[in-house]
Amino acid sequence: MESISFLGHMALSLASTSLPTEAAGTASEIVENSGVLALTINNVWMMIAIAMVFVMHLGFACVEAGFTQAKNTVNILFKNTITPAVGILSYAVVGFMIMYPSEWIMEGIFGFGVGLQAPESNGSLNLAYNEGYTYWTDFLFQAMFAATTATIVSGAVAERIKLTSYMIFTAIYVSFIYPIIGSWHWGGGFLAELGFYDFAGSTLVHAVGGWGALAGVIVLGPRMGKYTEGKVKDFAGASVPLTVIGVFLLWFGWFGFNGGSVLSANPASTSLVLVTTSLAAAAGAIGAFAATSFMLHKLDLGMVLNGILAGLVGITAGADLMNPYEAIVIGLFAGVAVVAAAIFIDRKLKLDDCVGAISVHLVGGIIGTLAVGLLGDKAGLSQLLVQLTGTGVVAVAAFGSSFAIFKVMDALRGIRVSPEHEKVGLDSHEHGMRGYTIVFDE
Amino acid sequence: MESISFLGHMALSLASTSLPTEAAGTASEIVENSGVLALTINNVWMMIAIAMVFVMHLGFACVEAGFTQAKNTVNILFKNTITPAVGILSYAVVGFMIMYPSEWIMEGIFGFGVGLQAPESNGSLNLAYNEGYTYWTDFLFQAMFAATTATIVSGAVAERIKLTSYMIFTAIYVSFIYPIIGSWHWGGGFLAELGFYDFAGSTLVHAVGGWGALAGVIVLGPRMGKYTEGKVKDFAGASVPLTVIGVFLLWFGWFGFNGGSVLSANPASTSLVLVTTSLAAAAGAIGAFAATSFMLHKLDLGMVLNGILAGLVGITAGADLMNPYEAIVIGLFAGVAVVAAAIFIDRKLKLDDCVGAISVHLVGGIIGTLAVGLLGDKAGLSQLLVQLTGTGVVAVAAFGSSFAIFKVMDALRGIRVSPEHEKVGLDSHEHGMRGYTIVFDE
Amino acid sequence: MESISFLGHMALSLASTSLPTEAAGTASEIVENSGVLALTINNVWMMIAIAMVFVMHLGFACVEAGFTQAKNTVNILFKNTITPAVGILSYAVVGFMIMYPSEWIMEGIFGFGVGLQAPESNGSLNLAYNEGYTYWTDFLFQAMFAATTATIVSGAVAERIKLTSYMIFTAIYVSFIYPIIGSWHWGGGFLAELGFYDFAGSTLVHAVGGWGALAGVIVLGPRMGKYTEGKVKDFAGASVPLTVIGVFLLWFGWFGFNGGSVLSANPASTSLVLVTTSLAAAAGAIGAFAATSFMLHKLDLGMVLNGILAGLVGITAGADLMNPYEAIVIGLFAGVAVVAAAIFIDRKLKLDDCVGAISVHLVGGIIGTLAVGLLGDKAGLSQLLVQLTGTGVVAVAAFGSSFAIFKVMDALRGIRVSPEHEKVGLDSHEHGMRGYTIVFDE
Repeated sequence: MESISFLGHMALSLASTSLPTEAAGTASEIVENSGVLALTINNVWMMIAIAMVFVMHLGFACVEAGFTQAKNTVNILFKNTITPAVGILSYAVVGFMIMYPSEWIMEGIFGFGVGLQAPESNGSLNLAYNEGYTYWTDFLFQAMFAATTATIVSGAVAERIKLTSYMIFTAIYVSFIYPIIGSWHWGGGFLAELGFYDFAGSTLVHAVGGWGALAGVIVLGPRMGKYTEGKVKDFAGASVPLTVIGVFLLWFGWFGFNGGSVLSANPASTSLVLVTTSLAAAAGAIGAFAATSFMLHKLDLGMVLNGILAGLVGITAGADLMNPYEAIVIGLFAGVAVVAAAIFIDRKLKLDDCVGAISVHLVGGIIGTLAVGLLGDKAGLSQLLVQLTGTGVVAVAAFGSSFAIFKVMDALRGIRVSPEHEKVGLDSHEHGMRGYTIVFDE
Repeated sequence: MESISFLGHMALSLASTSLPTEAAGTASEIVENSGVLALTINNVWMMIAIAMVFVMHLGFACVEAGFTQAKNTVNILFKNTITPAVGILSYAVVGFMIMYPSEWIMEGIFGFGVGLQAPESNGSLNLAYNEGYTYWTDFLFQAMFAATTATIVSGAVAERIKLTSYMIFTAIYVSFIYPIIGSWHWGGGFLAELGFYDFAGSTLVHAVGGWGALAGVIVLGPRMGKYTEGKVKDFAGASVPLTVIGVFLLWFGWFGFNGGSVLSANPASTSLVLVTTSLAAAAGAIGAFAATSFMLHKLDLGMVLNGILAGLVGITAGADLMNPYEAIVIGLFAGVAVVAAAIFIDRKLKLDDCVGAISVHLVGGIIGTLAVGLLGDKAGLSQLLVQLTGTGVVAVAAFGSSFAIFKVMDALRGIRVSPEHEKVGLDSHEHGMRGYTIVFDE
Repeated sequence: MESISFLGHMALSLASTSLPTEAAGTASEIVENSGVLALTINNVWMMIAIAMVFVMHLGFACVEAGFTQAKNTVNILFKNTITPAVGILSYAVVGFMIMYPSEWIMEGIFGFGVGLQAPESNGSLNLAYNEGYTYWTDFLFQAMFAATTATIVSGAVAERIKLTSYMIFTAIYVSFIYPIIGSWHWGGGFLAELGFYDFAGSTLVHAVGGWGALAGVIVLGPRMGKYTEGKVKDFAGASVPLTVIGVFLLWFGWFGFNGGSVLSANPASTSLVLVTTSLAAAAGAIGAFAATSFMLHKLDLGMVLNGILAGLVGITAGADLMNPYEAIVIGLFAGVAVVAAAIFIDRKLKLDDCVGAISVHLVGGIIGTLAVGLLGDKAGLSQLLVQLTGTGVVAVAAFGSSFAIFKVMDALRGIRVSPEHEKVGLDSHEHGMRGYTIVFDE
């Protein structure tokens, strides 16, 4: 998400050319005109990206409610509903200022006020902020991103975490942990100086969320009855159609997540990114399809769906660097890996991740980050070492901080619901309602 | 939705400047070129807004089918499917011409034909209609708006109104009532002259729909068994996931509803509007969350979802006038108010609104309209009085006309289904099918 | 989908004008600037269209899972999930090169590499490929289209076809059959030379898919128990809300399917296309509503939903040629026809199409194709004869090839699941899971 904003440069280069003096007023108007047009196009694309990334929150809600048990449907949906709300507000109040240090010096608690002002007279534009989009667009795009980090955690820890514990974690994660880590690269910090590359957040968003999920799962422990007498129990998810809806909406949203991370409407970059993103997603499905056929000897739709997501996470770090061949390779590999990882994490490590968030976002995120060193325009040993360094640094920071937050909360007030409530389901306890009431009177 | 179309002005200002005579041909071409580019960008944004507002119809369908009982699912979905169809056609045939008086003088019954012609030769453009978008874009954006007004009513009167009665109401409301009231402000009528301000329709769309809902609920009376022996019964909705999908789709659609109401792609205005819209929605969730915790002592997901919608309705009148602080204040207040209103309307007034449409759209709409006089760029006592006047005038017109329509229909043919049909559900009666058939043979 | 790209012409016309020599550098920069801006706007619109057409795959998934029985939900969703994956990859590897002959001369198996290169230096643009969009955008838009053809088949043959048989059919259809037929018109082949007109694919996409569906249904035979002792059994679909979600998402997606087929952001053409598309969909609902009321004497929501789809398919061939009156006529006719066709195909022909795909896509596609000869800018006897010719040629090619593929597969390995598996449902057999698990413990 580093600024490319190619159209903005046109205005500057045009401004330095000379026209006959009689026409000087006109020439400067034409230049300004071009700048306004370019800003407007870029900004439209970024606003579309905002709307698409917003849809990812619905995608996560559907995936998680589909994969988890019906007795906890209201609870997981409550989390997924409140997450973008808490996330956007937390990022507005604190996170945005932390992540982009150039924004630190601001008036008031929100900091809104510098950059592009609310348009007092219609049509007034402050082009100083950015050639590619307005201050408001920048904030909202970043805020939509920030809130996804917490959502990744919510699926893994579902069916047993207290709602308030999750909400406190979300507020801390979106206000501080995500933006601090993000500032190291996208805010121009030491990872940026080191040459670390993460186009749209395989590490900065997905692995950060994945590490949080891993920490939560470890601190919470598995669901009751999950691992007993050496056997692993699979709890059937409530609704496969809901999961499918969620995965397709996430793919749709990823067009904005990756496409918007170009930070302009540059036709070459944005359209390449859409192609690599789609090919990786498609290849992820095929990779997971093949892997489940060989490893599990059945056509496991859940795995194929997670294969699509793993392909998407995997391409995210280098979506603008890969050619179509490379995108397909990354997707296939991520699709196979997510199946192997899910089996390993569940059967061997006995870590109970209700939706496979760790295999998708953490494993997929690491694959995508390292792929930048192995394939595409930046491939090379030194880049690979930098990518490994970044992965390691973020691992320590994200896992360490998440683990500490969950541990402290657990010590202070307990983060797990009582066994009775877990058994009957969180919906009847915390919410007093059921997710589905489709019994007929007859 | 008053025309701002900032990019259009550029072409005009450029046209009046003088260039050396040799370059005159070129200069006028550059100017025309700029105008075409600006029209194209603005029009793309408006078309995206059309698609987003269209998605709101799916959002309403999901919210209403999720909140109402499973035995009436097909019926409510039938209404929500037929509503945009009847609405778009009604608005095409009659409503559009009524609402925008400048369009009255038209050939034929449809009136399509003036303004931008169907492009007989590819590439021909008539820029005379509007600098910001084409005649077709204008019509379709307005038509999508118009059809939402009726949809708001459908949820409130669900589970007991005859389908045909609802359809007749929809045709009349979209053809006449909504466009007549809308013409008073957006058509340049007396409310516009008075200085009334309603950016995207807190009053003109949502309160108009909300008044219709209130009238329908009063004329119909409550569902059987709702208020008996002094007790209030809550009927469990069929599917919470469906409601959540609906609310997220409505939030998504609101990016077009409010963002498109700028009527151009002006980067400053559109992006500010997206920010205020999102912050109000997020704050609405938090407001309702806090209110239900205190007032109901449970985590009521339905209320939080309606809090998001109330925040969205509340910001709609002044989405372009508020700064982020003000948007959050409006959202929080609307979120708290929607919970209080829902309890008051249900428990005290004993008005049976199946989905909370009156609290969301009527109460939220009034809050949003008055907020323009209290906060933001137009705040002031005189503006507040104008906003109150507009609210009162629309209240009389919308409630009065809806009440009359429902009363006349009821007198002529009855608008309520028989008690037997209400008891077994409208689906098996009017449609001969069930909304869900997910029993397995085993 | 023939190139209109009106904005691209501006750059060329501007380039040929003369400016005073002093300003020559500036003039050429302005011209290039205009070209880049125009390309960027057009490309943004095309990328939005890509995302919308992608959503159609989710729409089909929801429609098909909603219309079919709950015991086969996972199976149909597996197909609909894997279809865009297989489709996009097949089209990338083979189909794209076949369909657009000018792309045949390519390096390597993928052929990616000519046209617009991956942007090695930010901001570099190769305008040579197309004035309206980049090479990547072209590929992905076409790939999203290609994959829909197979999806149309999946619904008709559901609940009894082997998953692997369907996947093999999909790969062949998207790799060869669809692109070969498509090349005859959109690739500049003999149907193009003949003057055949199919704007966005009533024939080339929908009838091609519909003929495949018909062939599959004939080769497979009806589901067990569908036609016994002279009686026709209706199997209740699993979820009406899912079907409604699907149809609305398809309508939404059609804004991109038809709107993107303008192949530029031309404001006049794109906005007219959105209006004709929406009016035809709305009229399709009304036509089917009226037809079911008269023919079936009940309010059949499934028929109304298919009426919307038939209206959309029907307008697709001439969405840019019709005025609003004509769009409404086409929609009404298609809506009535889809009901009559569905009854005739099911009751008289005893062809078991689980979702009505043949009536919607084949009947609707033929209606739309012929409508171009009867209504709109190209109406006339000679055009009608050409449209009939095209319809006939495609019928032979698409039905013949599909029938052969299904027959050969059936002879080699059988394409139908065993009666036992069909009876208990494909989900427990092939997937080992249920589509819905919403039983509570209490």
